[in-house]
Amino acid sequence: MQECAPTVNIGLRGITIATTKISKVDGQAGKLIYRGYLIKDLAEKATFEEVAYLLLHEKLPDFEELNDFKAQMARERAIPIEVVDALKTIPNDAQPMDVLQAGTSLLAPHDPDLEDPSRDAFLRIAVRLIAKFPTLLAAWGRIRAGKDVVEPDPQLGQAANFLYMLQGQRPDDELTRFFDVCLTLHAEHSFNASTFTARQVASTRAHMYAAIAGAVGSLSGELHGGANVRVMQMLMKIGDSDNVESFVQGILDAGEKIFGLGHAVYKVDDPRAHILAPMSKTMGERIGQPQWYEISKRLEKVGKKAFKERKGIDIFVNVDFYSASLYYAMGIPVEFFTPLFAISRISGWTAHVVEERFAEAAPKPALYRPKSDYVGEYCGPDECSFVPPDER
Amino acid sequence: MQECAPTVNIGLRGITIATTKISKVDGQAGKLIYRGYLIKDLAEKATFEEVAYLLLHEKLPDFEELNDFKAQMARERAIPIEVVDALKTIPNDAQPMDVLQAGTSLLAPHDPDLEDPSRDAFLRIAVRLIAKFPTLLAAWGRIRAGKDVVEPDPQLGQAANFLYMLQGQRPDDELTRFFDVCLTLHAEHSFNASTFTARQVASTRAHMYAAIAGAVGSLSGELHGGANVRVMQMLMKIGDSDNVESFVQGILDAGEKIFGLGHAVYKVDDPRAHILAPMSKTMGERIGQPQWYEISKRLEKVGKKAFKERKGIDIFVNVDFYSASLYYAMGIPVEFFTPLFAISRISGWTAHVVEERFAEAAPKPALYRPKSDYVGEYCGPDECSFVPPDER
Repeated sequence: MQECAPTVNIGLRGITIATTKISKVDGQAGKLIYRGYLIKDLAEKATFEEVAYLLLHEKLPDFEELNDFKAQMARERAIPIEVVDALKTIPNDAQPMDVLQAGTSLLAPHDPDLEDPSRDAFLRIAVRLIAKFPTLLAAWGRIRAGKDVVEPDPQLGQAANFLYMLQGQRPDDELTRFFDVCLTLHAEHSFNASTFTARQVASTRAHMYAAIAGAVGSLSGELHGGANVRVMQMLMKIGDSDNVESFVQGILDAGEKIFGLGHAVYKVDDPRAHILAPMSKTMGERIGQPQWYEISKRLEKVGKKAFKERKGIDIFVNVDFYSASLYYAMGIPVEFFTPLFAISRISGWTAHVVEERFAEAAPKPALYRPKSDYVGEYCGPDECSFVPPDER
Repeated sequence: MQECAPTVNIGLRGITIATTKISKVDGQAGKLIYRGYLIKDLAEKATFEEVAYLLLHEKLPDFEELNDFKAQMARERAIPIEVVDALKTIPNDAQPMDVLQAGTSLLAPHDPDLEDPSRDAFLRIAVRLIAKFPTLLAAWGRIRAGKDVVEPDPQLGQAANFLYMLQGQRPDDELTRFFDVCLTLHAEHSFNASTFTARQVASTRAHMYAAIAGAVGSLSGELHGGANVRVMQMLMKIGDSDNVESFVQGILDAGEKIFGLGHAVYKVDDPRAHILAPMSKTMGERIGQPQWYEISKRLEKVGKKAFKERKGIDIFVNVDFYSASLYYAMGIPVEFFTPLFAISRISGWTAHVVEERFAEAAPKPALYRPKSDYVGEYCGPDECSFVPPDER
């Protein structure tokens, strides 16, 4: 079967590069599926630990498997003291994604399975990374604030433990549950930029840490994981829901976009946004700052209508739109929004690295080596003649 | 103009993803061109500093520009003491590529231009990274050996200064020149895996450090930058040129490949190999270990002949084949061969990141977002029904 593509496939849009069993994004129907399961079912009924297990092991764990997995995760949470010491050398105003990327590479030499090329070793490393990423981030949150690093609490689940390590107090059930849902919602999204980076690095047979550090770099970009930060900055700039109409007018007049409205894949609202919105409302009311949700809600409505009327285009709400106000209401610092994405997506990234390296069915992945067209006619169609510096 | 591609484009082979003005690899003619100039001219007549300038600025520098550039590079070589302190926390047996990747991310927070999205800022960061990469690697070489870190010497060029910082003594002119040629030869090679990773991370609008750290991860893979290490290990295993015939027979009998012979792009000998081979010979004789070159030379001849006779295929010598014995004879530890590739390729990577972010001519790059085919029919063609853990 053949499909035709333009000569230069900018951004690889429309180019199918792999088969995957990990997730499906149905942009027409607004469905996101992790290994057979609808995101709305997982968000409503599963915990992040179950989701991470599902992504890595291709099935939901039974009761015993889940308990074993949770125990394994809890055991693997601590990060080496040497890595904490290295974090302490980093300037306080560092971008947290740079810290997370450095931390990923710094963890590698401490992993006993680093040079084991087996699938089992990759899965063990995956669990370690999923377990340690929140510890890395929380440790950095404490260090940059001049506070003592909080050791992980093995009695707490992944969601509660992160908030505890970051904020120094154990979260209540509602906060824990909401954050757990966020982790599930952001865990996996097919061949997005960071996942593609992870797979691409892994395709050279680099180890898991090298691939994940690459993915962290990719996620840091404002066109990818950085988008939720831009949404919050926008909400703060609007400041009050009475200002939404004039803000949207300004956006339209300037030919700009509204952060969080629009997605290259979804042609309807992102199914994750509908799960996040009510949590944002509840959490905003809980902390006595209902305005961020209210601005978001009004912005969604006014923005959609205005773009339709003035530009004739339908815009849809994406995952970043309501996660911004939700994270804010949970007390997460704005510059931690993107790393929060990472401590969830690490589960999808690691599953993709395992698939990239150990896929058994054809077509098997291979080292990514695309072509490019050289258009550098510096000396016409011929090669340039070299002359020494003092004759140039 | 349209070209047809198979439905699943494994490894993106044959898929053109961009236009580039940086380099051309003509695998049929055995030509490698950096911005109009043949690699053999650059290797013979230019220094690495001229090549790095050419890659970044699209022209060879005149006398004054070159002096300014060299002075700028010399000024930017030092790495912050905090980064040195962080390196000291890393276990001595760490893989040097992990250290280089960590070091890249650790440098980011110290860069005054980190949040400046302009082309000029990216170019300044590029120079810093080209200048600092050798310092990072040499510092690690000293730290892991329990020796004092050697400060860069501004009087020395890039090649001599690296060897000085690593080995603690200033190299003579021949060693300096040979190493300088190696830096030029490895500086750029179009859309190889690591360069593609750098561009892909940059396409999310992540900063230069995030992109380069990703590239370092990609280069660490044994199918990419790790290959020169495998060549040296193979030469050591062979041990004596009398053993070459039986080694090649063993390879053929086992259906394996000879490391360093064969390349996905070149259909003739890699032009860089012909430049490296005589340097390997000279340097091996100089240190009284001519055997590594002799084994290589015989292995090239015997291997080519045997593969032709027994398998009917032509195999060609690639860049890793003679660089292995050359680096070894220069006194470079084997586990530093791949990082050595990185301290040269950083010039090509940074030029590609600048092109990815600031290309002015259509078709302009865009965020890479390929498609994948979901084949995960875990519950047949339907979605799975969620049941709680104790009912699974």
